[in-house]
Amino acid sequence: MNFTLTPDICELRDRTRRFIAEQVIPLENDARESRHGPDESLRHELVGRARAAGLLTPHASLDMGGLGLSHVAKAVVFEEAGYSRLGPTALNIHAPDEGNIHLMEEVATHEQKERWLRPQVAGKTRSCFAMTEPSPGAGADPSMLETSAVRDGDDYVINGLKWFITGAEGSDYAIVMARMEDGSATMFLTDMDRPGITLERNMDAMDACFTGGHGVLRFTNLRIPATDVLGEVGKGFRYAQVRLAPARLTHCMRWLGQARRAHDIALEYTRRRQAFGKPLAEHEGVGFMLADNDMDLHTARLHIWHTAWMLDQGEKCNFESSRAKVVCSEAEWRVVDRCVQMLGGQGVTGETAVMRIFTDMRAFRIYDGPSEVHRWSMARKLVHQAEKAAAAGEAAA
Amino acid sequence: MNFTLTPDICELRDRTRRFIAEQVIPLENDARESRHGPDESLRHELVGRARAAGLLTPHASLDMGGLGLSHVAKAVVFEEAGYSRLGPTALNIHAPDEGNIHLMEEVATHEQKERWLRPQVAGKTRSCFAMTEPSPGAGADPSMLETSAVRDGDDYVINGLKWFITGAEGSDYAIVMARMEDGSATMFLTDMDRPGITLERNMDAMDACFTGGHGVLRFTNLRIPATDVLGEVGKGFRYAQVRLAPARLTHCMRWLGQARRAHDIALEYTRRRQAFGKPLAEHEGVGFMLADNDMDLHTARLHIWHTAWMLDQGEKCNFESSRAKVVCSEAEWRVVDRCVQMLGGQGVTGETAVMRIFTDMRAFRIYDGPSEVHRWSMARKLVHQAEKAAAAGEAAA
Amino acid sequence: MNFTLTPDICELRDRTRRFIAEQVIPLENDARESRHGPDESLRHELVGRARAAGLLTPHASLDMGGLGLSHVAKAVVFEEAGYSRLGPTALNIHAPDEGNIHLMEEVATHEQKERWLRPQVAGKTRSCFAMTEPSPGAGADPSMLETSAVRDGDDYVINGLKWFITGAEGSDYAIVMARMEDGSATMFLTDMDRPGITLERNMDAMDACFTGGHGVLRFTNLRIPATDVLGEVGKGFRYAQVRLAPARLTHCMRWLGQARRAHDIALEYTRRRQAFGKPLAEHEGVGFMLADNDMDLHTARLHIWHTAWMLDQGEKCNFESSRAKVVCSEAEWRVVDRCVQMLGGQGVTGETAVMRIFTDMRAFRIYDGPSEVHRWSMARKLVHQAEKAAAAGEAAA
Amino acid sequence: MNFTLTPDICELRDRTRRFIAEQVIPLENDARESRHGPDESLRHELVGRARAAGLLTPHASLDMGGLGLSHVAKAVVFEEAGYSRLGPTALNIHAPDEGNIHLMEEVATHEQKERWLRPQVAGKTRSCFAMTEPSPGAGADPSMLETSAVRDGDDYVINGLKWFITGAEGSDYAIVMARMEDGSATMFLTDMDRPGITLERNMDAMDACFTGGHGVLRFTNLRIPATDVLGEVGKGFRYAQVRLAPARLTHCMRWLGQARRAHDIALEYTRRRQAFGKPLAEHEGVGFMLADNDMDLHTARLHIWHTAWMLDQGEKCNFESSRAKVVCSEAEWRVVDRCVQMLGGQGVTGETAVMRIFTDMRAFRIYDGPSEVHRWSMARKLVHQAEKAAAAGEAAA
Repeated sequence: MNFTLTPDICELRDRTRRFIAEQVIPLENDARESRHGPDESLRHELVGRARAAGLLTPHASLDMGGLGLSHVAKAVVFEEAGYSRLGPTALNIHAPDEGNIHLMEEVATHEQKERWLRPQVAGKTRSCFAMTEPSPGAGADPSMLETSAVRDGDDYVINGLKWFITGAEGSDYAIVMARMEDGSATMFLTDMDRPGITLERNMDAMDACFTGGHGVLRFTNLRIPATDVLGEVGKGFRYAQVRLAPARLTHCMRWLGQARRAHDIALEYTRRRQAFGKPLAEHEGVGFMLADNDMDLHTARLHIWHTAWMLDQGEKCNFESSRAKVVCSEAEWRVVDRCVQMLGGQGVTGETAVMRIFTDMRAFRIYDGPSEVHRWSMARKLVHQAEKAAAAGEAAA
Repeated sequence: MNFTLTPDICELRDRTRRFIAEQVIPLENDARESRHGPDESLRHELVGRARAAGLLTPHASLDMGGLGLSHVAKAVVFEEAGYSRLGPTALNIHAPDEGNIHLMEEVATHEQKERWLRPQVAGKTRSCFAMTEPSPGAGADPSMLETSAVRDGDDYVINGLKWFITGAEGSDYAIVMARMEDGSATMFLTDMDRPGITLERNMDAMDACFTGGHGVLRFTNLRIPATDVLGEVGKGFRYAQVRLAPARLTHCMRWLGQARRAHDIALEYTRRRQAFGKPLAEHEGVGFMLADNDMDLHTARLHIWHTAWMLDQGEKCNFESSRAKVVCSEAEWRVVDRCVQMLGGQGVTGETAVMRIFTDMRAFRIYDGPSEVHRWSMARKLVHQAEKAAAAGEAAA
Repeated sequence: MNFTLTPDICELRDRTRRFIAEQVIPLENDARESRHGPDESLRHELVGRARAAGLLTPHASLDMGGLGLSHVAKAVVFEEAGYSRLGPTALNIHAPDEGNIHLMEEVATHEQKERWLRPQVAGKTRSCFAMTEPSPGAGADPSMLETSAVRDGDDYVINGLKWFITGAEGSDYAIVMARMEDGSATMFLTDMDRPGITLERNMDAMDACFTGGHGVLRFTNLRIPATDVLGEVGKGFRYAQVRLAPARLTHCMRWLGQARRAHDIALEYTRRRQAFGKPLAEHEGVGFMLADNDMDLHTARLHIWHTAWMLDQGEKCNFESSRAKVVCSEAEWRVVDRCVQMLGGQGVTGETAVMRIFTDMRAFRIYDGPSEVHRWSMARKLVHQAEKAAAAGEAAA
Repeated sequence: MNFTLTPDICELRDRTRRFIAEQVIPLENDARESRHGPDESLRHELVGRARAAGLLTPHASLDMGGLGLSHVAKAVVFEEAGYSRLGPTALNIHAPDEGNIHLMEEVATHEQKERWLRPQVAGKTRSCFAMTEPSPGAGADPSMLETSAVRDGDDYVINGLKWFITGAEGSDYAIVMARMEDGSATMFLTDMDRPGITLERNMDAMDACFTGGHGVLRFTNLRIPATDVLGEVGKGFRYAQVRLAPARLTHCMRWLGQARRAHDIALEYTRRRQAFGKPLAEHEGVGFMLADNDMDLHTARLHIWHTAWMLDQGEKCNFESSRAKVVCSEAEWRVVDRCVQMLGGQGVTGETAVMRIFTDMRAFRIYDGPSEVHRWSMARKLVHQAEKAAAAGEAAA
């Protein structure tokens, strides 16, 4: 067992930390941040800075123009990037692009990669992932997928309504999940400027950290050539898992950075602000919150590191990424909520970065599977495992 | 013991409930709601509707033009009003006016009441309460007050900086808390259009339910005639307590209404939305959250009722209002957080009223004394009480 | 609304408080307390003292020899009695006798009352309630009842195995729940010395406050005359509800007394014990626990009072008693757990009464329905209520 | 980064697991277990079995007769040993001997080791650690030490009262902490059969897993030769830290084994026990508890591994061992409390091993520093660290 990071990872960590401090944090509160995240101009400025610093799209393969980071290396670098709410945008590692890039690397053909992936890794384009639907369609339960794909000659014709499509506005291409006539699901690639794609509106969301916000997309007889199927027909649900397990974990990493930022701000504030005769931090009630923050941050980091390492060993980590997602989203949330409390009035205003971390982070306990869905999925696996062990024990006896 | 409400209160409750449903909720999401609360035009429309319904400023005395409600009656009516985020504005029972009206009734002279209170009770004017200051001034610890008042002839000259002054922008008059040369504190009444008062800026806040938002006010050689002292010179801290104990409780009441609204929305949603083969509400994990909500709502209501009844008996309720404030602010917050979770993606967007309840309510665990300050104040009283009892026991022995 | 207690109840409360302090607490740690509760000799001594004080079996009807207390009066008196772990035994208001007496008053015939109830109210005899069974029988889910009753001439013949039968050892009579051939359930009355009843063993339990402990009872061709059916044949499940709703609430009352005792001990200890330069109670971390205790105790008391008052109005309170049971069992448990923590090493040893309160109370979150079963039952009722309201709304429209 | 265990550690883990399953668990509920832990006869039988299995005192140095395990290896082996409440006794790794052995290895002279340590490592003798005192002496705050040591010729004369001295009854030697005339503290070694040592009583404790229970020891003019000072005069507080940091962590390890055992029992039970139409484990409410258990167990294990690895790197880990102690004691406690709840009535009786785990484990949140003391100590270090960083930043600027 060994918790040492390689010198390469340490160098990258330190470089990312300096980059965020010197190049990214000064752009926080730039006028180009809107209710729907940094606008394209700000995004391009951030991406340009990361490119210059050699930190752009570090999780993409070397072949595609990234740094080919391992999952453990991502754990370290993404946490650093997450220290600013603009950091993931700068490094091009934000949802949904981060997960889409990973999925494209795994499943797309050479032609598809050259057409859609290479410019995306270069930070020139953006993508969205069109899966979630309004009731009665696919939400926490993806099997309720209603958007349909029907074969028509060399094309598929797609009809349906999607919402909570992060980054839809302004994105260049989409990965669309649709139900086939046999009930299976398929993923399709499509440029966003095709006829048949309408952005009905951008949703009013609590978070404001994703460029493009969260859109409502309608597909009306959208024609997609069969060559633009992503991977194989009928394997959509399986690919969704391929995408999700690591994507979940990268959320844990980025938000860990945000939670650490909140904690640092609260620590600094409580060291300096006096109340009832001494600095806030010297009140036990506040000190306990600082200690609890440290415990939660370290717990999150250990779960991330362990799961990342298992992914690096080639494990699928469906169980482990569910567990890490619940542990991290809840621990990191507790940290940020405590920071708001310690900051008092300043915690609920824009006087510090913490208010935005609070409103940006709440959705993390919900997306990529609410805590409740992961808990249930974990429970079934624990029971299944116990059944198998019991059966093996009885067989052996 | 008797939990029956009088027929009068029941009638008022039912009337308020209908008024909110029919006259107020339809105005939610009106374009005149801004980041800093309903604007003056919307406020006047709401107030006008309440006036027509005979529900305006119901906590003010009959003499001043209110309904002269008891604390128990307020508990019932304010909860109903709180069912819409616009309800307290409509009934003219929102912070800080609600508490200022109460304080003015208790302490102001006849002339002061006629000048400032009567038009406020009529819903024509608004006020703010200028106490909180940036570090190193008065925050959770009011004794750190830095704004100074110096006697100069028949006037006092006020200098200082205040922030988190709810409703400052657009308010007609202010109650200003300042430190005297002898270290005591005094409250002053002043019109807001006097020279020496500058609204430096309106703060960027997580909540958006208070008309006027939260301002930063600077007083520069503000001259206030001695006749505009509120109550007696040097009794500012005592009056702050007079204002705070019931004011805290009315927050509990209004937010209980908002929490109940969130719960009703979540209950309705989970009854209808299917996942994994059945309505969400038929999943135990969701059902447990509904049950926990009911427990928390009822707990909050019981604490409010009990404390309100004690206030009606003439008790000061410093301890009880602290206790109710902590219990209610935390129980009601848990309810709203659970509702966000049950609503999934919709909980973190403007698709329902719950997102706004969540962002509007977070500050409640902080203002009028953060939970931590109330817990500590309660602890000291518990210890003091035990010491007195022990001393009495020893004296008796 | 009115939280005032009548002078009669106040007098009874004060008398009970003095009785517990002077007559009962001195018998705590008497050698006649065993792992299975106070033995019969100690029980008779305690009961004798309560009889002399005019406090014996106060919840029984005047007709049967009790004081005919209302539910609200019980709330007050039982809390006082619960201040000592021996108090409920002294007043003859402990489980299962308390609930059995209530059920007998409601359902038994005149003859049955004279034979079994009158001596029990007089404190001369004890009873048990034989419902719970080992897997796969009736546990949290009573419908899984396996013990069978078969009609044979004028008798019923009972066969089955029961466990967790509180007070079985040494009890004089039992109420036995058994399944009829048609699947319904019936309650039977039987003396415990009949052939066919075997106490297989007394279970090793965490609690030690119930005289007779918790027994495993086997019924082997136990013959019970049809005249000893309690109430009507086939109404067993309904009577179980009649018994349970108020019985649950009396647990809340008695354990509230124990929780208050623990709190008083912890408050006293932390006022006196020094650490790190000041009394423990002057450390915020400890002070916060004292404040949380006060909140939890008051929350429990308010739920008890409200539900008791509703029972006094003739409501069935199935929902409310479930809610009170969850709220109180969890709030009171938190209090006791905090007290253990505040007492440090003394909390986990017999140096104070708190250790016993901790081990005695843990089962309260389980018996009479675990928290999970009540939460689920509440959820179904909330959903059902919402469905009815929605249907009524649509019908009205 | 690497979470792989070496083949040696894996072999030892598997061997320990088999040993516990086959040689130790069958001795649970042996009649020789008393309220004060396994008696000497049972202890010797267990130790004999571990010796035969080559698993005795594995943390002691090879030189002294142990296996010379690293901290990481201990983390793995101690968790396995902890799977039975008798396992730590069998392997001779229970408190206080485990920590005393570590301290003796670090500080004792060659002669002291040969006299006291070698037979202890061989499992022939036992020791106790006499530090804690009744009020107003040393408790959570060790600086309040009252037991005095006064030089008299070649001896020291010790007077004082100690309590909560685990294993005192029947132990062969003690490490005694006493205050010098200059206010510093010194540790002394003494055989327990010397004149001047009286075991006043054995305390009635909630736990029952330590041989010898918890004693009250009085020292009356106990004479100890200066050669029996442990380490240097005046360094007692420093040695207490040397002992405590790793000792705390070994508690985390052993109790992790107990928590895992409880979880396995609850998982097995809920897989089989039916209620409301399906196995308990298929109810979401129960499934969520199983998932939460898995999260808490894994969190505890990760904190233990990380801190153990840091200790292996030569770090002192005062902060990290405090953090691990709070995280593990609270996470493991939650696991066990949930298991009691899932087991229903069986959780609060001796029908399974869980009841004993519950009552044995509660003290873990208190001993070796209550959670509150560790939180505060962590907070001060976080603030101190931030101050240093701020000063460095300012110096650099």
